[in-house]
Amino acid sequence: MRTLVVIAHPDYDNSGTQAFLQASAQSLSQVTWHILDQVYPDLHMDIIAERQLIQQADQIIFQFPLYWYSAPASLYAWLDQVLQTKHEETLPDFSGKILGLVVSTGTDQKQFAAGRQEQFTLSEYLRPFEGIARKVNLQYRAPLIISQFSYLSEQQKMHLLITYQQYLTLKTDHFAQRQTWLIQRLQTLVKNTEAESQLTGIIAALEANQEHLTDLTETLQMLKGEPYE
Amino acid sequence: MRTLVVIAHPDYDNSGTQAFLQASAQSLSQVTWHILDQVYPDLHMDIIAERQLIQQADQIIFQFPLYWYSAPASLYAWLDQVLQTKHEETLPDFSGKILGLVVSTGTDQKQFAAGRQEQFTLSEYLRPFEGIARKVNLQYRAPLIISQFSYLSEQQKMHLLITYQQYLTLKTDHFAQRQTWLIQRLQTLVKNTEAESQLTGIIAALEANQEHLTDLTETLQMLKGEPYE
Repeated sequence: MRTLVVIAHPDYDNSGTQAFLQASAQSLSQVTWHILDQVYPDLHMDIIAERQLIQQADQIIFQFPLYWYSAPASLYAWLDQVLQTKHEETLPDFSGKILGLVVSTGTDQKQFAAGRQEQFTLSEYLRPFEGIARKVNLQYRAPLIISQFSYLSEQQKMHLLITYQQYLTLKTDHFAQRQTWLIQRLQTLVKNTEAESQLTGIIAALEANQEHLTDLTETLQMLKGEPYE
Repeated sequence: MRTLVVIAHPDYDNSGTQAFLQASAQSLSQVTWHILDQVYPDLHMDIIAERQLIQQADQIIFQFPLYWYSAPASLYAWLDQVLQTKHEETLPDFSGKILGLVVSTGTDQKQFAAGRQEQFTLSEYLRPFEGIARKVNLQYRAPLIISQFSYLSEQQKMHLLITYQQYLTLKTDHFAQRQTWLIQRLQTLVKNTEAESQLTGIIAALEANQEHLTDLTETLQMLKGEPYE
């Protein structure tokens, strides 16, 4: 899957979150990293070039810090200009493509709820993006939210790295697909490491788990197919 | 009440809706008309000047066409720059001020509902603005929505003109206050018109209605005060 990451951040170079995400994505070959505020400091987009980038991608990701419960201005400049229907060139065909969001917030995610500090959920604040996906026929994917990145422990950051890489390279968030992905990544890594035997053990255990999961799924399907008497 | 109308529209000069609203506001002395895309074509705001405008207003109105279920980029540039907390100057004190929205849509307002074309209500799509008001301590006012302006009849346009003038000059949308406002406007107009006697009759009828309304309110309050036996 080819993924286009459209990043809106007026202060990209000073963002620890964005630096971490960029490092996490570096080893992924099918990912295009596109920082709007750096490519277009004056926010005047090259409409034709942008539409070609969209056309080449299977998944488009809007990646931004939550500013005023929306995205920074550069993403709106992109939307206003690149997706405008008045331009002589026809809009790209979005059907079959996915729209993902990677949104970082300075506030604890728990605060996004009725009666709490931010009053509404992030699903509610991000409705306009759901509307956009619907409008242009993109498949809207559950956003990946990164809250208070600087407070994350090392372990939480490693978990985020995996989740983020999966978000960029997998079409869905299903458990079985994520599990298979982990096994493949481990198999690649194992060749370049000293702890090969130990890792081979972990992979075997994961594969056994995977078979067990498949068995369970089959049993469940069988049970569903047999009516009770 | 002093009202600052902050307008975001990348094609302001070609908008029939905006031309109509500008003409409607022209006779109002306490209204500051502020077209972001014309004052700042490069979207680099004068933060200090903008904060002074805010400080002088009792009501701030964001006026824009709904682009991608949000405002055009210039409003986000304004929010990102003018309301940023990193700037050395302190933010204006928003307490006691009102935030209003005047939003025009190309789609019929009925389509903003579950199961209809736009899926969600405008209240839902505009949540980020409710969040902004809450965040900076502005009082959020129910938005004035203008749907499919070009399809409005002459009578509907006259009604919009009145509603819009009231939105800019009154603090609330209560019926009694709007009625009083109408009487005052008529009394001013009557002096410059030929149909003076006819209009005087209309004003008398409206004033009688107003008294009737006051009577009704008082009766209701009296009834509420007396417990049933």
